[in-house]
Amino acid sequence: MGRVIIAVDANGADLGPAEVVRAAVLAVAADPELRVLVLGDLSGVDRGSVSDRVELLDAPVSIAKAPEPVPAVRSTPDASIVRTAKLVAAGDADAFVSGGSTGAALAAALFNIKRARGIYRPALAMTIPSPAHPFLLLDAGANVDVRPEHLVQFAHMGSAFASEVLGVARPRVALLSNGTEASKGTSDVLEAHAALASGAGALNFVGNVEGFTVVSGAADVVVTDGFTGNVMVKTMEGSSQAVLGAVRAAAMSSTRSKLGGLLLKPALGAVRAGVDPEAQGGAVLLGLRSLAVVPHGSFTARGFAAAIALAARGVREDLAGRTHAALEAAGALRRAPEPSGVVNTVPGR
Amino acid sequence: MGRVIIAVDANGADLGPAEVVRAAVLAVAADPELRVLVLGDLSGVDRGSVSDRVELLDAPVSIAKAPEPVPAVRSTPDASIVRTAKLVAAGDADAFVSGGSTGAALAAALFNIKRARGIYRPALAMTIPSPAHPFLLLDAGANVDVRPEHLVQFAHMGSAFASEVLGVARPRVALLSNGTEASKGTSDVLEAHAALASGAGALNFVGNVEGFTVVSGAADVVVTDGFTGNVMVKTMEGSSQAVLGAVRAAAMSSTRSKLGGLLLKPALGAVRAGVDPEAQGGAVLLGLRSLAVVPHGSFTARGFAAAIALAARGVREDLAGRTHAALEAAGALRRAPEPSGVVNTVPGR
Repeated sequence: MGRVIIAVDANGADLGPAEVVRAAVLAVAADPELRVLVLGDLSGVDRGSVSDRVELLDAPVSIAKAPEPVPAVRSTPDASIVRTAKLVAAGDADAFVSGGSTGAALAAALFNIKRARGIYRPALAMTIPSPAHPFLLLDAGANVDVRPEHLVQFAHMGSAFASEVLGVARPRVALLSNGTEASKGTSDVLEAHAALASGAGALNFVGNVEGFTVVSGAADVVVTDGFTGNVMVKTMEGSSQAVLGAVRAAAMSSTRSKLGGLLLKPALGAVRAGVDPEAQGGAVLLGLRSLAVVPHGSFTARGFAAAIALAARGVREDLAGRTHAALEAAGALRRAPEPSGVVNTVPGR
Repeated sequence: MGRVIIAVDANGADLGPAEVVRAAVLAVAADPELRVLVLGDLSGVDRGSVSDRVELLDAPVSIAKAPEPVPAVRSTPDASIVRTAKLVAAGDADAFVSGGSTGAALAAALFNIKRARGIYRPALAMTIPSPAHPFLLLDAGANVDVRPEHLVQFAHMGSAFASEVLGVARPRVALLSNGTEASKGTSDVLEAHAALASGAGALNFVGNVEGFTVVSGAADVVVTDGFTGNVMVKTMEGSSQAVLGAVRAAAMSSTRSKLGGLLLKPALGAVRAGVDPEAQGGAVLLGLRSLAVVPHGSFTARGFAAAIALAARGVREDLAGRTHAALEAAGALRRAPEPSGVVNTVPGR
C-alpha cells in the first residue's frame, strides 16, 4: 500500500473534535500503513483509547464559524485549519482533510498548499450518490465565474480523479448544459465543448449532458462552473429529501398506509443509504499540489474516516502527478502566470 | 369573467391534434365566455362532437419536429405554430398556446407577437410543483446568456404573473444563487441583487435562495438565467423520478416489501400527483405583447385544457399591462432600443 500521513483539522466537525479523533482511529484500524495527525481543540478527548498511529496536536483556535473565511484564514495563522494546511505544505503530511467550511478549506489550501503547476483554479469535486448511477460533479462551488479554459482543466482533473482514486475505468466525461446537442450552452460552454471535442490526450469526452440525463447515469464526470454546480448539488439534495419526505408523509396518512410503510421500512432504509453522502467521504479540492478532502461538517466518525481513506488513496495513486501528466498530454496546462484573477469565494492568486 | 379568445397550435402534441381538440372542448365547457381556435392537422378529428365555441382551422403544416426551430419558423409561414402566433398578432385571438418545442414557440412568438415595449428578453417561466411548496422559476431556458438588467426584468415579470395569474398575494421574489448571503453569486447575480435590493416599486424581494432552500418553499418566484434555470428544472425532475424509482424498486425487493408497497400504493399515487406537471398547464413566455403558454408535448387533454385556462386568466387579468406598469414603477424598463443581441435559442430582435 505505501506509508501515508494525512493531516486532519478537527475543529469544523459539528459533533466536535472527539468525533474526528474517533474517525482517525477507525481509519488507521482499516489501513496498517496509515498515520493520521489530528489538529483541534482536543481538551475533551480521552487519549487513552487512541491508536499510536493517530497523533493528536492541540490547536484550539478555530475559524470554522468565521463568516468571512478568506480574511479569517489570512489573519489567523494559528487556526487549526491553517496549521493543518501548513503541515502538508511543509511535507510533514501528504494530504489535507478539513470538515466544515469549504470556503475556509479552499483558502487555507490555496494560500499554503498552493495550486499545482499549470492549474488555473482548484475545483471542488463531489461524488453525487444518485440512485441510478453515482457521478463526480465539478466544480461544485469553488469558482462561480469561470472561463472556458477552466472548464477544460476541470474535465481533465475530474477524469484523473475518477480513474485513479474512484477506480472508474475510462470515465465518461461530460459538460453540463441546457441540452445534449453540441449547439446548446452558454458561450463559455460552447467554447469548452469545442476544445474538449477536438482535444488530444486520453480524455473520454462524451459531449453535453443535461440535468435530467445526468441523474440517470449518462456520465461518470460532469463538468460545470461552480455556480451552476452548486445550484445543481443543492437542488438534488433538496429534491431527494422533499420526495422522501412526501413518501414518509404519505405513509402516515392512513392506517392502511401506516402498515404499508412499516412493511416497506427496511427497503426504504436501503434507498436512503443509497443517497447517503457520508459513504463518499465528502468533497475534494482538485488542482492543488496535494489532495484536499472536505467532508461535510455534519458527518459522523464514519464519514470523516471515509474522507481520510479517500485522501490516502489520492496520495498512493499520485493523483497530483497523474493529473499534471494528463493536462500536459492534452495541452491544457496554463502557459503563463495568470494575472490576479477574481474568484468569488477566494482570491485566485 | 370577460370574453376571451385563445389560439392553440395543436401539431406539437405527442398524442396528436385530436387530443388538443378534446382539451379545447374541456376548456370551453368550464368557461362560458371562452372561445378557442385550434390550428393543426385536423383530418382525423370527429367534428360532430365539438362545441360551437371551439373553432377548427386546418393547418396541416407542422414544424414541431424541426431540429432547428428558428430557421424553420422563419422559412415556414404556413406552419401551424406561425399561423397561431399571427392570429394573436393580428388581434384575432388574445393569447397563444402551443405544445411541444419551446424553441419554436419562442421564435414564432418573438417574430410575430413580438416583445412588449421596454422588455429586453422574453423569459420562460415554469411553475415547479415541489412537494413542499410550488414556486415559479424563470428563466427556465429561453436565454442562456443574460445580463443583470435582464434578471431584474425577469423578477418583475415573474412577480406580476405570480400575483395576477397564479393568485399569490405579495409574492416573495428571490434570486437563485450559490448561497443565501447577498455576497454570494456570479458578478451578474451580485449586480442584479444590488439593483433589486435598492429598487423602487412594489416588488417583494427577499434576497438569494439556493438550490436546497428553494425546494422547501423559501420563495414564490425564483429568478435565474436560462442556463442555470434549465439545469435546475431538469435536475429536479430527474432527482424526483430517480428517488421515486428507487422507492418503487425497494417495494419489489422482498415479499414483505411488496405487501408494504401494495398497501402504500394509493398514498404514493398522491405523492406522484403532487409533482404532476399537467395540473400547472405548462410553461409560459413572459415579456411578449400577449401571453404565450407552452404546455409539454406529452400532455394529455387535461394538461392542454389547463394551458388554455391559464392563457385565458392571463388575458383577463391584463398581465401584459400590469407587468409593464410594475416595470415602469421600478424604473426597470429598457430605455433605448437594444442593439441586436444574441439569444442562444432565438435571435433577440
